[in-house]
Amino acid sequence: MTKQEKLGISIKKTEDFSQWYNEVVIKGELADHSMIKGFMIIKPRGYAIWEKIQHNFDNRIKKLNVKNAYFPLLIPESFFKREAEHAKGFAPELAWVMDEEQKEKYALRPTSETIIYDSYSKWIRSWRDLPLRLNQWCNVLRWEVKQTKLFLRTREFLWQEGHCVYETEEECEKEAKIYLEEYKKLCQELLAIPVIAGEKTEKERFAGAKRTYTVEALMPDGKALQMGTSHNLGQNFAKAFNITYLDKSERKQLPWQNSWGISTRLIGALVMVHSDDKGLVLPPKVAPTTIVIVPIYFEDKKKIIKKANEIKNMLKNYEVVLDDRDDYRPGWKYNEWELKGVPLRIEIGPKDVAKKQVVLVRRDNNKKEFVKLTQLDKKIKNTLEDIQNSLFNKAKKFLNSNIVESKNWNDFLKYIKNRKLVKANFCGNIKCEDEIKDKTDGATSRLIPFQQPKKIGKCIKCNKEGKFLVIFGKAY
Amino acid sequence: MTKQEKLGISIKKTEDFSQWYNEVVIKGELADHSMIKGFMIIKPRGYAIWEKIQHNFDNRIKKLNVKNAYFPLLIPESFFKREAEHAKGFAPELAWVMDEEQKEKYALRPTSETIIYDSYSKWIRSWRDLPLRLNQWCNVLRWEVKQTKLFLRTREFLWQEGHCVYETEEECEKEAKIYLEEYKKLCQELLAIPVIAGEKTEKERFAGAKRTYTVEALMPDGKALQMGTSHNLGQNFAKAFNITYLDKSERKQLPWQNSWGISTRLIGALVMVHSDDKGLVLPPKVAPTTIVIVPIYFEDKKKIIKKANEIKNMLKNYEVVLDDRDDYRPGWKYNEWELKGVPLRIEIGPKDVAKKQVVLVRRDNNKKEFVKLTQLDKKIKNTLEDIQNSLFNKAKKFLNSNIVESKNWNDFLKYIKNRKLVKANFCGNIKCEDEIKDKTDGATSRLIPFQQPKKIGKCIKCNKEGKFLVIFGKAY
Repeated sequence: MTKQEKLGISIKKTEDFSQWYNEVVIKGELADHSMIKGFMIIKPRGYAIWEKIQHNFDNRIKKLNVKNAYFPLLIPESFFKREAEHAKGFAPELAWVMDEEQKEKYALRPTSETIIYDSYSKWIRSWRDLPLRLNQWCNVLRWEVKQTKLFLRTREFLWQEGHCVYETEEECEKEAKIYLEEYKKLCQELLAIPVIAGEKTEKERFAGAKRTYTVEALMPDGKALQMGTSHNLGQNFAKAFNITYLDKSERKQLPWQNSWGISTRLIGALVMVHSDDKGLVLPPKVAPTTIVIVPIYFEDKKKIIKKANEIKNMLKNYEVVLDDRDDYRPGWKYNEWELKGVPLRIEIGPKDVAKKQVVLVRRDNNKKEFVKLTQLDKKIKNTLEDIQNSLFNKAKKFLNSNIVESKNWNDFLKYIKNRKLVKANFCGNIKCEDEIKDKTDGATSRLIPFQQPKKIGKCIKCNKEGKFLVIFGKAY
Repeated sequence: MTKQEKLGISIKKTEDFSQWYNEVVIKGELADHSMIKGFMIIKPRGYAIWEKIQHNFDNRIKKLNVKNAYFPLLIPESFFKREAEHAKGFAPELAWVMDEEQKEKYALRPTSETIIYDSYSKWIRSWRDLPLRLNQWCNVLRWEVKQTKLFLRTREFLWQEGHCVYETEEECEKEAKIYLEEYKKLCQELLAIPVIAGEKTEKERFAGAKRTYTVEALMPDGKALQMGTSHNLGQNFAKAFNITYLDKSERKQLPWQNSWGISTRLIGALVMVHSDDKGLVLPPKVAPTTIVIVPIYFEDKKKIIKKANEIKNMLKNYEVVLDDRDDYRPGWKYNEWELKGVPLRIEIGPKDVAKKQVVLVRRDNNKKEFVKLTQLDKKIKNTLEDIQNSLFNKAKKFLNSNIVESKNWNDFLKYIKNRKLVKANFCGNIKCEDEIKDKTDGATSRLIPFQQPKKIGKCIKCNKEGKFLVIFGKAY
């Protein structure tokens, strides 16, 4: 029995980006909608990507002496009220559980600063307990009212949140930036997504933070996506949660804190940046399957399958699938594995066996090549590296060509309309930023890049003294 | 400054087991109570043990072609009602979130059969989709009313739940037992805890299951602890959730399912079984720190620390801490690391440096030995193996000597009172089992061991026809 169901993506990436994205995620079997409004199911191929992200980042932070722990899902209402800005920021997104017996209301954690810092106030006694660097991998809930988008905006998502406490402001600030740098490396080296690093403006800052640092990427539809943030919380939460320590002179002091997080939304960015009209395109380092072997046979099945298995065994260092299903034709299999974003395909038929070769096909650019078996291992290694690099370079080129600088308001409007990221001088005033958002149908300041010019001109909007150069854009 | 705080466990294991346990967990820094009633915080040393359990078991199931995924935390009320026994079993333990907008009530998952099988009913179409083997690592909530016990009974805990679907009853049953066998290996080989494997009686079966398999361990206070369970769900949930598939002849069929889980309660068992009056004792394979090096110096600090660092570098294959804190005396450090259950301590002082040796001290039996540096690596390897084995053997001996067989009711009562596990013939009747529980102040059937005698005598309680030999006991 052969089977030729309708496969593939029904819409082009350039036609309807949002619909295309949804199809790629679902048909690529990364995730599915849940019966419950606003919730998603992460399917095995999507979760395998998350495991690779976790593995990569968890190793990085362990080297930085961060340890993993786990804090309760539920947060007493009273904890939220302690840090006023934080409470205000998260209030609209909370879901509640009632404990009838205790007559207490608990929020499902949208982030865990409050519940973690309550424990820190008990655990931290002296300078010996500092720095304290903990992280947790967990689920969080934010009761979004906007339309759900798989991986990008769901009411529950998976993430890591790091929470560190220091004796000095300098150490706290320095490490907040180190974690951001780790996010940058993760995005660029593992996910092949170029990012811009910088600071958030006051308006876009994390609720309760002194400074928020961010890495932002540009999606193919011209919208920016916040990939990871690291917050210097100053002493705000230490005050609110009464965290103190005795310094070496036995004086009571307030410590300094940072917190930082990345989430499963990174998988959404990964899909948007690299994939195409045939479905998923995944950088080799993060692909759940690296290579698929498709045997092509007519009457000589046994011989071909044997050879295909030999090749599979040769490639033990990679995640290889041998697709030896009898009831699908090779062409159908090609489409399916392209849809699923497997970076490399090996085709092997009777002629190839005779010639001691295979056909090697790249998912990213569809290039085909005959490769002698003796060369295969080396060729695969080099090709995977090349795919990883060329995906990054392509995305980098796109990013660079879509950042423009604007010196006057009319250009600014035009650029934003054309879905560019726009560099402009800005006064830093929240009201002015509100106006910009208003007049542009939703453009926000994405970040203040770390690299700033020596002299800042007048604010693009209000024409008053400029404070810094800011990148504005529409965002997810 | 030297510091000599009160360290250590204030109560003996034999004096007040429950209080001792609580102190060992808290002072050993595995976990802490949360401000929220019934919730716990898993601290880094506890979480590191959980990571080792996860790593070990995750590798095992991946080899069995199980893939990880993630399903929503919230479960619509309507899903729970679909499988009547399941609903009845979990109803008392559910916590609820109200979605005002949707006018729907969601339970925080106590286990995920219902929400996962709703998806399975959409994903499974034909025999090609089977077997389907998924697992998730997640938090679950069960609103316990009994007193909390860290790791053993908390309202939130971490676990894995596997959910598999098969074409045939045979395959389903076979694999349910394979997962149980993996639990057994995990308990015995990693945690050094001997277990008994068998089936649950009808009364103790998982809500909605056809058969429940279990591995049970005996705690030092004579109570049994269920370490992991694997359920053959039959077709109960397939019927309730309308999961069907087309077989090779295109006929619609109901598939067969199993589900299986272990949780952070394993860490509680680990503590209870091996630890002693000085605090934690951890089997080397699961200890977060394997070796601590304590340098002993007076004026020759620099030389000793240098040597200690050399030794640390020699032992790169292990998780080694060099405790070079200046403001604690060696004796204080010994106590602290014993409290934390580090399996091996290396002491090195001026005389040892001169003699090119160290002192090696075992946590489990306190034995001290001088070891030449040239022999150290090999000695450590052998000693760690020996610790792992001797902890297992000690626990195995305890288990064996506390299982007794009883042929009459009076002996049965006496044995139960003496906190033994009691083997007895049993009729299988739920009412009879209720009576046994009643008359013994809470003893329950733990399991029907897989190894059964050829002939079963009369039921220990009602004297009617015996169905199988059962192990009864008090349990956590």
